[in-house]
Amino acid sequence: MQLILHNYWRSSASYRVRIALGLKKLPWTYLSVHLIKDGGQQKAPGFRALNPMAQVPTLEIIEADGSHKYLSQSLPIIEYLDERFPEVRVLPADPYLRARARALAEIVNSGIQPLQNLSTTRKVTELGGDERAWVQHFMKPGLESFAASAADVAGEFAVGNAPTIADLALQPQLYSAHRFGVDFSHLPLLVALEKRYAAMPAFADAHPDRQPDANS
Amino acid sequence: MQLILHNYWRSSASYRVRIALGLKKLPWTYLSVHLIKDGGQQKAPGFRALNPMAQVPTLEIIEADGSHKYLSQSLPIIEYLDERFPEVRVLPADPYLRARARALAEIVNSGIQPLQNLSTTRKVTELGGDERAWVQHFMKPGLESFAASAADVAGEFAVGNAPTIADLALQPQLYSAHRFGVDFSHLPLLVALEKRYAAMPAFADAHPDRQPDANS
Repeated sequence: MQLILHNYWRSSASYRVRIALGLKKLPWTYLSVHLIKDGGQQKAPGFRALNPMAQVPTLEIIEADGSHKYLSQSLPIIEYLDERFPEVRVLPADPYLRARARALAEIVNSGIQPLQNLSTTRKVTELGGDERAWVQHFMKPGLESFAASAADVAGEFAVGNAPTIADLALQPQLYSAHRFGVDFSHLPLLVALEKRYAAMPAFADAHPDRQPDANS
Repeated sequence: MQLILHNYWRSSASYRVRIALGLKKLPWTYLSVHLIKDGGQQKAPGFRALNPMAQVPTLEIIEADGSHKYLSQSLPIIEYLDERFPEVRVLPADPYLRARARALAEIVNSGIQPLQNLSTTRKVTELGGDERAWVQHFMKPGLESFAASAADVAGEFAVGNAPTIADLALQPQLYSAHRFGVDFSHLPLLVALEKRYAAMPAFADAHPDRQPDANS
């Protein structure tokens, strides 16, 4: 079995899956889909055939028998990895906490990230809007909601004392917060979590700057 | 045990959960959170305490011992219901098909819906943009991607021959397509699925027009 992640250094959805692969210590291959070069390589027919939304990441799984599987959408990819490689889990064992971790991940995945997506901000710019102001408008309350929603379940991590899918969603969002100038210093939980993540190899190795196509 | 769904008739995320409750034949209570009245009842401090994102739906679970649990975000709510009440399942049993169903649901949940959200279209209007044109710009390719992504797994439903979380996400999105004037008659799979859903009580009963706060 072989894992190939079609992804992009600065894509926050890609970043989430990279952290999951790292925590699970799975060997995988980096395949860059450059979102800017060639007018966006994700729009090429070859990639669209694997991923009709023309978005990264897509996980390609080459099974022992040579057959290929393709999976898109970061959270479903992470759920699949968690079911198939359960030695290190990123979904809590308790059903209610599992739901809470998923809900926190969705605050980022559907509540913040789609509004900062390149395809969204390009339309905002076309309308004469300011990309940075637009992103800040959605990201600040989103991060505040994440912190408030995690308040009663957080421990050393966003849910309990081990990293979960909620942390995998949060770290890339905090990276974006710095990039878009969204201050979250008034949210001590997020500040503490970011510090904790930075000390972990799986999070550090998944950082955009460490990817082969970084700054290219 | 008692289930109370804090929701709104026209909210597509609420609509998804209503279909799940119906398919599972679970008794539940409708609690309206009116997104327009009173400047948006979802912004009231009482509701925000349950749901810091100030979004519907929130599922309230009153356990036999009188304790209350609250869950937000439609897809995690549906996953929780599927784990707790597995007699009728909306997640496929096969791990790969389960991932594919989740990915289809995410095309709607994170790929389309956040762009048509009231909080998004209000900002678009503020920028002088046309709400309808904006929504159409994102919804049309989103629906096309859904159809293309489902092509190799669809049967009588979006994934196989029983309704899954992918159908629970699709039906409300098709309702929105009519509302925003997005034509999908060139996508025979979606046309066929919509017809199939309409014939099922769980889908019909969950329709916005049938809710107690409809058109209020």
